[in-house]
Amino acid sequence: MTAGLARFSINQMTVKQLPLPELVDACRELGVPGVGLWREPVQAYGVEATAKLVRDAGLTVTTLCRGGFLTATDAGERAAALADNRRAVDEAAALGTDTLVLVSGGLPAGSKDLHGARERIADALAELGPYAEDHGVRLAIEPLHPMFASDRCVVSTLAQALDLAERFPAHQVGVTVDTYHIWWDDTAPAQIARAGAQGRIHTFQLADWITPLPEGVLNGRGQIGDGAVDMREWKGYVDAAGYTGAIEVELFNDTLWARDGRALLAETAARFAEHAG
Amino acid sequence: MTAGLARFSINQMTVKQLPLPELVDACRELGVPGVGLWREPVQAYGVEATAKLVRDAGLTVTTLCRGGFLTATDAGERAAALADNRRAVDEAAALGTDTLVLVSGGLPAGSKDLHGARERIADALAELGPYAEDHGVRLAIEPLHPMFASDRCVVSTLAQALDLAERFPAHQVGVTVDTYHIWWDDTAPAQIARAGAQGRIHTFQLADWITPLPEGVLNGRGQIGDGAVDMREWKGYVDAAGYTGAIEVELFNDTLWARDGRALLAETAARFAEHAG
Repeated sequence: MTAGLARFSINQMTVKQLPLPELVDACRELGVPGVGLWREPVQAYGVEATAKLVRDAGLTVTTLCRGGFLTATDAGERAAALADNRRAVDEAAALGTDTLVLVSGGLPAGSKDLHGARERIADALAELGPYAEDHGVRLAIEPLHPMFASDRCVVSTLAQALDLAERFPAHQVGVTVDTYHIWWDDTAPAQIARAGAQGRIHTFQLADWITPLPEGVLNGRGQIGDGAVDMREWKGYVDAAGYTGAIEVELFNDTLWARDGRALLAETAARFAEHAG
Repeated sequence: MTAGLARFSINQMTVKQLPLPELVDACRELGVPGVGLWREPVQAYGVEATAKLVRDAGLTVTTLCRGGFLTATDAGERAAALADNRRAVDEAAALGTDTLVLVSGGLPAGSKDLHGARERIADALAELGPYAEDHGVRLAIEPLHPMFASDRCVVSTLAQALDLAERFPAHQVGVTVDTYHIWWDDTAPAQIARAGAQGRIHTFQLADWITPLPEGVLNGRGQIGDGAVDMREWKGYVDAAGYTGAIEVELFNDTLWARDGRALLAETAARFAEHAG
C-alpha cells in the first residue's frame, strides 16, 4: 500500500477518460485500494464483467453512483424512476458495494414547489429503503450545492438530507458528505456530527471549490488542494463523527478530463495523500 | 400611481443600459415610484446632480448599492476598504436614501478561512456602523448565494447575516433579503421572521432563479416569473415579518441588458405587479 492511500478511493468520474480495465490496472500500479463506480460505464462494460474485473484486482468498490431523480409528479415517470432505482440497487449488490449514492432530482418543469419535491423523495425512499436493505445496500442521499437546487437536486444541505434520512432506519438510508457541496455551510460540521451519531455517514467524498464556475456549473470542480476547501478540516469533522470508511475523490472537470488519465490518477492520489491521507 | 406598483422600486442595474436621465424619465412615465441606485453610474453622473435629478422627479431612492468587500487581511487594503465604505455612506446620505447594501467580500487569495473572513467583516462593521448612524444610513448585509462564497461574499445565508448584524444596533446594521440568493433555503422563512422581529429587514429585493447558469454565474438572474421562485410566497414571509418598505427588482442578465431599456423596464414593472404587486 502506498503511504497515505489506505482510505483513498478514486471515483470513476474523476478519470472518466480511462476505460475500466485501464482504470483497474492503474489503481493496482499506484496502490489505490478503492473505486467508486458509475452506472453508465459499468453497464457499457457489463455489470458482471465489471464485478469480476475489480474483484480479481483486489479493488474495493466503495460506492455506486448513482440512483435518485425521484421528484417527478407524473405517475409514469415516478414508476420508471422507482424501477430504475431498483435496478441500481441490484447493480450495487452485484458489484459488491454496500452504498448507492442518490442525487434526488430537481423541480419538475414549471414547478416552484421545493417542499413538495422533497416530500416526493421521502415517498420514494419508503419504497426503495426496504428493497435496498433486502439486497444489502444502503442509500446515501447526497445534498448538492444550492446552485443545483432547481435542475438537479432539491436537497441542498446536510440538514435537509438528514431530515429525510431520519424517517428511515440508518441501515436503509443515510447521507453522502461531499466537501464540494457543503464547504460554504457553517452549520455543516454540526450536521456531520448528527449524521455520525446516527450511523448515517455512508460515504465521504472530496472535491475542491474553484472559480470562475463554467457555464452550466457542473464540470468545474477543482483538484484537491487547488481551491478554497480545507480538506484536513473537513476530514477532521468526519473522523470526529466516527466515520472510518473510504474517502472518495470525485471531480467533474473538463480540463482534467482532457489530460492523460493515468497521470491524472497519479496526481489525484498524491494530492489525496498530501491533503487527506 | 399605476396599479400594483406602490411598493415597486427598480434597481438601476436591472436596466443599466438606460442613462440616469432616461431611467428617471421612464420611471415617471410608467409610474415607478422608487429606484435603487449603484455607486459607479451615480459617480459618473455626479452624486449631487443625481440627487437633484431624482428629487425633482419625485422618485424615492430606496437603496444605494453597494458597500462592503471587507474581508482583506492586508492592513492597507483594509484601510482603503473602510475609507471607501465611508464614502459610500456619504453618497447614500447625499442621495437621500437610508440604506446602503453591503456585499461583504470573498476569501483573500489563497485563504481557506471562511470563519476568519466573517470575523473581519464584524470588525469592519464595528467601525462603519456608528459612522453610518451619524449620517442617517443603515447598513444592510446581503447574504449572497453560496455559489459566490469564495470570490464575492463569505456571508451565504440569512442566518449568517443576522449572526453578524445582531452584534450591532438594528438602526446601524440589518440585512438585505433577496429571493435570488435564499430561495433554496428551507430555513430562510424562519430567519426572515427573526430579522423582522428585530427590525433588521432593511431592504427586500426580487430576482428569479433560472438555469443554465452562465459562465461565472454572475449575470444569469431571471426576470420575475420566468424561474423557480414563488415571489408571492416570499413576499408573504417578508410581509408577515412586518416589512412595509419598497421592493426592488434587481436583475443581472446579459440577455436583458441587450434589449431596449424602456421596454425592459415596462416589462419588469408589469411582472412586478403580477407577481408581487
